[in-house]
Amino acid sequence: MIELTPAVTKLIELALEEDLGHGDVTSEAVIEPTKEAEADIVAREPLVVSCLEVAQAVFRRVDPGLTLTLHVANGARVEEGAKVMTIWGRARSILAAERTALNFLQRLCGVATLTRAYVEAVRNAPLKVCDTRKTTPGFRLLEKWAVSDGGGSNHRFDLGSGVLIKDNHIAAAGSIARAIEEARAGAPHGLKIEVEVDTLEQLDEALAAGAEIVMLDNFSDARIEQAMAHVGACKPRPLVEVSGGITLERLPGLAQLGVDVVSVGALTHSAPAVDLSLDLHEMK
Amino acid sequence: MIELTPAVTKLIELALEEDLGHGDVTSEAVIEPTKEAEADIVAREPLVVSCLEVAQAVFRRVDPGLTLTLHVANGARVEEGAKVMTIWGRARSILAAERTALNFLQRLCGVATLTRAYVEAVRNAPLKVCDTRKTTPGFRLLEKWAVSDGGGSNHRFDLGSGVLIKDNHIAAAGSIARAIEEARAGAPHGLKIEVEVDTLEQLDEALAAGAEIVMLDNFSDARIEQAMAHVGACKPRPLVEVSGGITLERLPGLAQLGVDVVSVGALTHSAPAVDLSLDLHEMK
Amino acid sequence: MIELTPAVTKLIELALEEDLGHGDVTSEAVIEPTKEAEADIVAREPLVVSCLEVAQAVFRRVDPGLTLTLHVANGARVEEGAKVMTIWGRARSILAAERTALNFLQRLCGVATLTRAYVEAVRNAPLKVCDTRKTTPGFRLLEKWAVSDGGGSNHRFDLGSGVLIKDNHIAAAGSIARAIEEARAGAPHGLKIEVEVDTLEQLDEALAAGAEIVMLDNFSDARIEQAMAHVGACKPRPLVEVSGGITLERLPGLAQLGVDVVSVGALTHSAPAVDLSLDLHEMK
Amino acid sequence: MIELTPAVTKLIELALEEDLGHGDVTSEAVIEPTKEAEADIVAREPLVVSCLEVAQAVFRRVDPGLTLTLHVANGARVEEGAKVMTIWGRARSILAAERTALNFLQRLCGVATLTRAYVEAVRNAPLKVCDTRKTTPGFRLLEKWAVSDGGGSNHRFDLGSGVLIKDNHIAAAGSIARAIEEARAGAPHGLKIEVEVDTLEQLDEALAAGAEIVMLDNFSDARIEQAMAHVGACKPRPLVEVSGGITLERLPGLAQLGVDVVSVGALTHSAPAVDLSLDLHEMK
Amino acid sequence: MIELTPAVTKLIELALEEDLGHGDVTSEAVIEPTKEAEADIVAREPLVVSCLEVAQAVFRRVDPGLTLTLHVANGARVEEGAKVMTIWGRARSILAAERTALNFLQRLCGVATLTRAYVEAVRNAPLKVCDTRKTTPGFRLLEKWAVSDGGGSNHRFDLGSGVLIKDNHIAAAGSIARAIEEARAGAPHGLKIEVEVDTLEQLDEALAAGAEIVMLDNFSDARIEQAMAHVGACKPRPLVEVSGGITLERLPGLAQLGVDVVSVGALTHSAPAVDLSLDLHEMK
Amino acid sequence: MIELTPAVTKLIELALEEDLGHGDVTSEAVIEPTKEAEADIVAREPLVVSCLEVAQAVFRRVDPGLTLTLHVANGARVEEGAKVMTIWGRARSILAAERTALNFLQRLCGVATLTRAYVEAVRNAPLKVCDTRKTTPGFRLLEKWAVSDGGGSNHRFDLGSGVLIKDNHIAAAGSIARAIEEARAGAPHGLKIEVEVDTLEQLDEALAAGAEIVMLDNFSDARIEQAMAHVGACKPRPLVEVSGGITLERLPGLAQLGVDVVSVGALTHSAPAVDLSLDLHEMK
Repeated sequence: MIELTPAVTKLIELALEEDLGHGDVTSEAVIEPTKEAEADIVAREPLVVSCLEVAQAVFRRVDPGLTLTLHVANGARVEEGAKVMTIWGRARSILAAERTALNFLQRLCGVATLTRAYVEAVRNAPLKVCDTRKTTPGFRLLEKWAVSDGGGSNHRFDLGSGVLIKDNHIAAAGSIARAIEEARAGAPHGLKIEVEVDTLEQLDEALAAGAEIVMLDNFSDARIEQAMAHVGACKPRPLVEVSGGITLERLPGLAQLGVDVVSVGALTHSAPAVDLSLDLHEMK
Repeated sequence: MIELTPAVTKLIELALEEDLGHGDVTSEAVIEPTKEAEADIVAREPLVVSCLEVAQAVFRRVDPGLTLTLHVANGARVEEGAKVMTIWGRARSILAAERTALNFLQRLCGVATLTRAYVEAVRNAPLKVCDTRKTTPGFRLLEKWAVSDGGGSNHRFDLGSGVLIKDNHIAAAGSIARAIEEARAGAPHGLKIEVEVDTLEQLDEALAAGAEIVMLDNFSDARIEQAMAHVGACKPRPLVEVSGGITLERLPGLAQLGVDVVSVGALTHSAPAVDLSLDLHEMK
Repeated sequence: MIELTPAVTKLIELALEEDLGHGDVTSEAVIEPTKEAEADIVAREPLVVSCLEVAQAVFRRVDPGLTLTLHVANGARVEEGAKVMTIWGRARSILAAERTALNFLQRLCGVATLTRAYVEAVRNAPLKVCDTRKTTPGFRLLEKWAVSDGGGSNHRFDLGSGVLIKDNHIAAAGSIARAIEEARAGAPHGLKIEVEVDTLEQLDEALAAGAEIVMLDNFSDARIEQAMAHVGACKPRPLVEVSGGITLERLPGLAQLGVDVVSVGALTHSAPAVDLSLDLHEMK
Repeated sequence: MIELTPAVTKLIELALEEDLGHGDVTSEAVIEPTKEAEADIVAREPLVVSCLEVAQAVFRRVDPGLTLTLHVANGARVEEGAKVMTIWGRARSILAAERTALNFLQRLCGVATLTRAYVEAVRNAPLKVCDTRKTTPGFRLLEKWAVSDGGGSNHRFDLGSGVLIKDNHIAAAGSIARAIEEARAGAPHGLKIEVEVDTLEQLDEALAAGAEIVMLDNFSDARIEQAMAHVGACKPRPLVEVSGGITLERLPGLAQLGVDVVSVGALTHSAPAVDLSLDLHEMK
Repeated sequence: MIELTPAVTKLIELALEEDLGHGDVTSEAVIEPTKEAEADIVAREPLVVSCLEVAQAVFRRVDPGLTLTLHVANGARVEEGAKVMTIWGRARSILAAERTALNFLQRLCGVATLTRAYVEAVRNAPLKVCDTRKTTPGFRLLEKWAVSDGGGSNHRFDLGSGVLIKDNHIAAAGSIARAIEEARAGAPHGLKIEVEVDTLEQLDEALAAGAEIVMLDNFSDARIEQAMAHVGACKPRPLVEVSGGITLERLPGLAQLGVDVVSVGALTHSAPAVDLSLDLHEMK
Repeated sequence: MIELTPAVTKLIELALEEDLGHGDVTSEAVIEPTKEAEADIVAREPLVVSCLEVAQAVFRRVDPGLTLTLHVANGARVEEGAKVMTIWGRARSILAAERTALNFLQRLCGVATLTRAYVEAVRNAPLKVCDTRKTTPGFRLLEKWAVSDGGGSNHRFDLGSGVLIKDNHIAAAGSIARAIEEARAGAPHGLKIEVEVDTLEQLDEALAAGAEIVMLDNFSDARIEQAMAHVGACKPRPLVEVSGGITLERLPGLAQLGVDVVSVGALTHSAPAVDLSLDLHEMK
């Protein structure tokens, strides 16, 4: 992540407008505009840090005069009590930006923290833990960054950056072979052809038609073992992705079966927020 | 909820652009543009429906020619397998909008479903279950609607629509009494003065200074009981809000203690996604 | 006011685009791009200064290289001839931004100046002079800042930050009592219930039902005096707001009657522009 | 005016977001979502109607299901009590859009009404009454439409659609003649060269150099009479525009002197709002 | 192409605002607002039609009341004089939208027309003619649609939807092998690894390291022939893309050499506009 | 050109979002985020430089930490191999911005370069070479700057900044004389009345009615010569603009005939891209 993209900037503006677009009636009544303070963003539980640039952008958008210091880098695992960032400047500005900055961080660090747990469960295996398109609307790029900060890998970004043939496409084309042929002709040549299969028969059809990635959807471990044998007989051997019902407990077993990729919707759609707070020190 | 606000429309546009702004390489290669289909959005687990208008708006933005039929209303609790919405029209359009519509619904129905659980735990008591400002950035209005569809109540929308005096404001003003006095002078006269207190001493100060709402932050049930006695002695009796560490289990006890409002950040920041799918029927 | 909100930034961009989005054909033909100059914004009549940050933002958006110096603060009353701001930098940039900056200032200082006249008419009384929602579309936040710079108070910001029960709501609910009850159940608990009344009978109903603010709409002074007696008998005594036909002349009388708040639409919808000019000194 | 431009649409969205982007807490609590009503927008004083399309757009953006009927056309003069527009549909939608629609109309009809007074003061003379660039930021196009609906004429739209050489340009160029020469070479050939003059000497210079329009800035009627003699001696005779200190009273005299155009900033910057209300009939 | 994406809608709004955001001074002065007319968009030279939806969107945005009829489909080749689209409705609306609609069509049909010439030069060969990222800023999606309407294929959409290792990446990684290894580990697994090579030595390194696509940059036909021999020895054989200095004349030869893909920047960056006009019939 | 207008900023954001809104999967996998580099933008053919500010804005939007140095000014003609700009900073940022910056420059320098060729063909004549409204949608301002950097002149910016009476206007008004009269009454008085004529009869009508500019549309040189005689007899003599079928070869002849202005659509709609590259030096 370098600088923020225009779409992320727009999301930050939507977020700031919704929280302080009508001013801050309490601070404006009670705190002198010139009063300055120092504040720390502190982890209230162990977590993996992610997307600090977004929090920085929130504070800067509210007040370019704030001084921001990072104490850790994206991807770092920190313990309860760790300082993540220090902000110095006008107290009113810090309080105005506080909630929006924390709301971004609690979600995105939450995604990174959950991803890290999955990744560590298969630490020494070549199994990639991937996200899906089941992301929070408007947060696709940020949540993919968070997965990456957590140590995970990214699946296709959107409908335009990966070919994934599912049952509806197969039904429309008439057969797996025909769907693959049409995709190879019509889609950009830099994209591999991935086919989602529900049965071993479909798997065999996909392999015969030259699928470059096969996604085993909701397969039990036993059927995955069978599938891996079918796949192993192909030259070149396609990549094997497993999806559906992936739990932390199943991961080591999947790694042992030789699966290449697992894709896990829960990384982004159900990661609980982690607990972070902003502690404001005595004002001057 | 009547029609969508400009800010919600912008969020929907961000979400659509991020998923299909580069086209859908698979469907464009495999599915004829004129092929039509019918699809149902189906609950895959028991859930409370919310924000159907957002899903409708997603489908309409992708293709105004789609026909949309709702089978339930916002706020309805449905069982696993229930049809929520039916979509008829071009198959490509339905597949293009599918993920974005579901991503909105799985989150917002998730918030409504979790809220419903909290609300039902205190069904016959006058205790209001409220959200907080710990919402997903850009989703403040939608998540507040979801809390409302779940049967919960809404706290202040933003920093401009409620006075909430916290420790930093007290420190800046010099005392609770002074902070209340300044807020009363400076904030819009239609807003009640709410003070967050950490101790019974602070509570007494707030009561003496005429706070209209007191928020007991991270109080045990025992201390809440004491606090209620102090409050009960005031005329007019201010509202009592409890916040911090609220669990489903504590709720009946809090209701019995006479608390007026509990505010629960987890309703919005940590509600897990509920499981919904789009089932596409045979295409024509 | 700290930094500008995203919505205000968008308004400034609309304003700049409409005046110089097609370039400045005169200056581009006649003035060398490197020529520099100093310019003063000068009051051409006595006025109250407001929203200087907006004028600064206009100049900075046109050319971040301009040097801006403020000579007075928001809320200051200045005499004819007073310098408000000095700008130094490229002459073309100053001329390009001139009209837009002045157009903002002449309106917003106009609102502040008119507000100041109202406020001074009741200088030693506890009567609050408030704005309304009759603002210039897109200028709600700025005009509320201007009222505040003028010494006035702000009414509810929007339809979401204040409960105001009017005749249509009463008709829909069936009675004042029922409308108040529904609002208390459904609206955020931090908002006071305000009821607009046209008659003393309605006033009594509102008082009996526990209205926290009563708005006397288009009441003569004599009827206000009667109303104050009814209100004075209530415990706790609600706030009394008077609206409709408020003139500078009536204000001292209203203060003497013990009214708490007057709300005046003319502060924002009919304040005449004040006269400010930009004087460009010899160029170098 | 045909349909609304993208910039006007954006202004309407800013206006709606600021008033109901956080919902309408009163109506949502008190009025059933299915309740329908009819409402009239009524003139509360004699006025000239303008920019009805903007009010229509506001209602449609809030709820495309509303039925809108116009009773008069832009430019019509109506008496107190005249119905301008009728709206039928969901009561909540009508109340939600009411204030924003009225805020646009009260300003723009105000501009049209004031313009009409100026235009009628010189009804039978060929004198054009023009606006200036002293408009409300973001409202340039709308206020120019309102001037036109009032019967007035439009001056240049922006810095890119008219050449106006002022003292700063003369200073930069070294002389009026040189400034005119540079403008003729550099500006689009479809634009007339207009020069603002403060003295008769400057006027003579401008005439000698071939100015196509001369603007007499802050000239008394006596000096205008002298100026007209100088101008009358030119072939081809340039247009004469008078600006600064234009009052209704002076207009007939200026017409008699043979002036071609007067430009009046007050038409847009200081037109008082006219009084319009929305009357909601019994709901069903 | 189904419906227009949010980004395309924004581009259309920028285009309309820039041409008629200040009104149409000629038509408004000369043509009655109620006058209606029929108009045809006519090809003034042989061309391939593309992106008709964009032209439709332009007319609809200006006036939703216009009736639009298409006479041909995207991708059709039409002769000089062919009617492409008929528009019926208010004459002012048609004239207001005319230039913007034609400006889109003349460019996008130009891209499709040029692409068709390339594609027909290798009609019976399996050689794909591809675009590049050398597109008009803001037009990426539209120009890719135009290439597709012309019969060409699309290369990666953006920096996020294709891996392309160039000399700078090789330099940063230290070797081709290392760059490929890092890309395989870090990039989404659905993307093929493409390497741009300048020499046969680099080609061999890329092949040895398992590149899935090799791009021969600025290779002569003779060197391409050599390269194809190296490639042919690999199992699985990677795709071969040729780029740089591709002319219509070279295409048949490249097809014969067995090249899989040619990518041609000129398709989008230098396609001349084709000639289309809007002919307005007698008005009623 | 001073700073970029809001509309140009939006176009740059659309362009950046479309190319790197989903990240840069290659550089993120292969290049260390801290690696720095220096890069030059180099002309690969002789060209006229234009709109360097846009390229600067692209780099700054991607990474405000980049250092940018210009080696030439807008309007300069440079030879093949000339360095135009040097960029220093993070390598990833430079590569991320590269394509978007070059895509702007190759088009806009292309327009300037083609314009320069036209302008030099009539170097010593007073003939103005003008653009038209046949510009790339969204690029009106930028392409007009490019024409200006190339030494050309600008025609009216949009439908609101010039009166141009064409056949449809004449048909609607009934006659040329009537159309001119209506335009003079209705259009801003600072705009000259231009009439497009197809025949000498129309020309005479336009001259008789006082057209201030006559545009000879698709006239041969012989007919232009005749037309110039008609025009020469008028007092004041209107400007003569020639349009349609203008080639470089015809220009000297047109100059000799005394034509004032030629307007050439090809300057903007068909200028081929010029060749520029970004050369990245060894990274550190």
